[in-house]
Amino acid sequence: MRIESPREFERLGAVRIYGLQKVYELDAGPESGSPEGGEDSVVRRVSSEALHEIESQMAIVVPVRNERLKLIEGVLVGIPHDCLVIVVSNSPRAPVDKFFLEQEAINNFCRFTRKQVMVVHQKDPAIAAAFSAAGYHDILDDKELVRNGKAEGMIMGSLLAKMAGRKYVGFVDSDNYFPGAVNEYVKEYAAGFCLNPSDYAMVRISWHSKPKVVENSLYFAKWGRSSRHSNMFLNKLVGHHTGFETEIVKTGNAGEHALTTDLAMSIDYATGYAVETFHYVHLLEKYAGILTEGEGVGEDMHRMVKISQIESRNPHLHEVKGDEHVEDMIAASLSTIYHSKLCPESLREEIEQDLQRRNYLKEGEQLAPMRIYKSLDRMNYDQFFATSEAAIRAAGGTSLTVPVASSKPSPVEPTPAETAED
Amino acid sequence: MRIESPREFERLGAVRIYGLQKVYELDAGPESGSPEGGEDSVVRRVSSEALHEIESQMAIVVPVRNERLKLIEGVLVGIPHDCLVIVVSNSPRAPVDKFFLEQEAINNFCRFTRKQVMVVHQKDPAIAAAFSAAGYHDILDDKELVRNGKAEGMIMGSLLAKMAGRKYVGFVDSDNYFPGAVNEYVKEYAAGFCLNPSDYAMVRISWHSKPKVVENSLYFAKWGRSSRHSNMFLNKLVGHHTGFETEIVKTGNAGEHALTTDLAMSIDYATGYAVETFHYVHLLEKYAGILTEGEGVGEDMHRMVKISQIESRNPHLHEVKGDEHVEDMIAASLSTIYHSKLCPESLREEIEQDLQRRNYLKEGEQLAPMRIYKSLDRMNYDQFFATSEAAIRAAGGTSLTVPVASSKPSPVEPTPAETAED
Repeated sequence: MRIESPREFERLGAVRIYGLQKVYELDAGPESGSPEGGEDSVVRRVSSEALHEIESQMAIVVPVRNERLKLIEGVLVGIPHDCLVIVVSNSPRAPVDKFFLEQEAINNFCRFTRKQVMVVHQKDPAIAAAFSAAGYHDILDDKELVRNGKAEGMIMGSLLAKMAGRKYVGFVDSDNYFPGAVNEYVKEYAAGFCLNPSDYAMVRISWHSKPKVVENSLYFAKWGRSSRHSNMFLNKLVGHHTGFETEIVKTGNAGEHALTTDLAMSIDYATGYAVETFHYVHLLEKYAGILTEGEGVGEDMHRMVKISQIESRNPHLHEVKGDEHVEDMIAASLSTIYHSKLCPESLREEIEQDLQRRNYLKEGEQLAPMRIYKSLDRMNYDQFFATSEAAIRAAGGTSLTVPVASSKPSPVEPTPAETAED
Repeated sequence: MRIESPREFERLGAVRIYGLQKVYELDAGPESGSPEGGEDSVVRRVSSEALHEIESQMAIVVPVRNERLKLIEGVLVGIPHDCLVIVVSNSPRAPVDKFFLEQEAINNFCRFTRKQVMVVHQKDPAIAAAFSAAGYHDILDDKELVRNGKAEGMIMGSLLAKMAGRKYVGFVDSDNYFPGAVNEYVKEYAAGFCLNPSDYAMVRISWHSKPKVVENSLYFAKWGRSSRHSNMFLNKLVGHHTGFETEIVKTGNAGEHALTTDLAMSIDYATGYAVETFHYVHLLEKYAGILTEGEGVGEDMHRMVKISQIESRNPHLHEVKGDEHVEDMIAASLSTIYHSKLCPESLREEIEQDLQRRNYLKEGEQLAPMRIYKSLDRMNYDQFFATSEAAIRAAGGTSLTVPVASSKPSPVEPTPAETAED
């Protein structure tokens, strides 16, 4: 991959937000020995060896909910072989057991590819019991199962990546029509970690464009309304604290992102549509050195938190299910800014006015705060591993193909030897 | 790349047509030392090292005609770095010099990527003069310039690939919206040459699907009408000569294809829409050992001509210019079968009936033959190289950035040293 060096960055305490990086070649070839494209260059060359090295330490989490199997398979086709894939499904199990069909399709695919894939169900009681035993109750609903929601699936996936010993964890949606785009995202995660390395690093993708069907032809829109809003208000937040107006944030709503597992364990998570915007808000709350009191604040100021933003080259063409509620997305994203201790009164008023102007909030109404999950590093990992293992054993390992049966989960990788043991 | 071994093939004399191969992973990782995915496997693993090895010997020809610069740049982004890119443009030079704009955009792109790109214009008089001097007049029109047409651009591109000493030459359209799809095609060319190697090898891509806007949403059509026709009649032709009905041919109209430069020099070319279908017809005429007389027939029967067919995973989403004339495409493709000496009378009648049923041919009318260019290996290469060099020198190397100025053309690769020499 060939990719430009970030031309600028904003620094707030330990947080560095790098400017958007442009991609020049999807495949810049292998190590060549030539100094061209090295550390001093404006355009950097990341060799395929360097990408593979990172990929072999990366888990890719694919949240699934009632997705067409063809699309899931296509996403698996696009993920580089050495990544561990963690499919977290919240598909219905009745009247048709969609999860069973997913497992079957993925198992079949793995037979041909020997890809390492973990498949878990979000409502798996064994995993819920393990969360409970490990002292992490927030994520459970009143039935003592993990709550619904993509954010909750992402949290589960991150935890499984940690259990599998992966250093990086990335997220890819399961409804992408183009395996080549999925492949690009993962390569960009790897390139970002390569170019801006840190124990606490995050890479966020800004889509090249999102084709829409407009009047019976395709229009390649660059920004959705929701992204525009999140970016604008995040930039105002950053600008308020640096004193300089900025447009640095381009990925306020980046569903496609990756981070070091250490960072994934150390940050809080917002739910619903707010999860990605809250990354910025929370990283600034925790590591920007602006807040002087509050839980966890200032404790890790010696870390360097690096946020890379990369502009993908493939358009993002995904399935349109018609269940996107743009106004709710905007409100959720802005809510995380609005309710942050970092948010100045003037910005709060701007947010209120914006939502009122679009008739989302009536005069006198207040923007509801989002549910926030505290960071995973406060749970007892050993207890989680032990309990989930025991719980699954007790359940006889029935219909739940939960490979978190040990602290070293065994991915679905049907080598002849394993098949024989089954 | 992980790709299945061909499950079957049809053999006719020296020609082997392999069954469609399915792709399981776009990136199967680097050499691992594990025997998994080796020559005995049903699903083969082609390491990134093996792909790069082939790519470094490959030229990718990109025919351009009045394309948007954004799309051309995207295609360049997708082509692996080590491939030599040969852009053959037939864009207008007046009233706006589109070719100049293309050169400028590509030069700028190369400054960032150090990619090796040749840019030539199809109507370059120097190249036309070289064709003439080398004794290859067929391709020239009455103004003594290379004729218009994509096939003519492809022939020029193949010749330049030969001059640049590349072992393989592949073709990629310039109007693809997805750099990731372009990247996939080239990787599949490389994988095909790797898995079914021969001095006379060809790899043809069958698109996974071609999304169409239907009733304001996307429909992923698998086969166009034209492909369906070409494949059906080509299969009838093959079946007639083997005595077994077959569906082996899936890529009768494959615009995305690659072949060894040796093979590219040794085959005849049809013009217009017929170029791809005629590959099959002509390879069978020349190498299947069916015809016993005629020019060139039987001379190379000791060669093994291997045609691989690979099903890409990315949908093919390209710009719709509305200038595709499906009926003309069908007629042109079928014409190459109809007018072949291999075509039995019964199949000729079927083709006539088909075209009459669709009102393309009236009763009593006959399908016009396509213009056929004889193979390039009958021209004097040395003369071509020498003349084009001299011609360009005489012209003072003005507005024509023609890198065929020597038998070792210098691609557009603005290294600091080269810039200094200029």
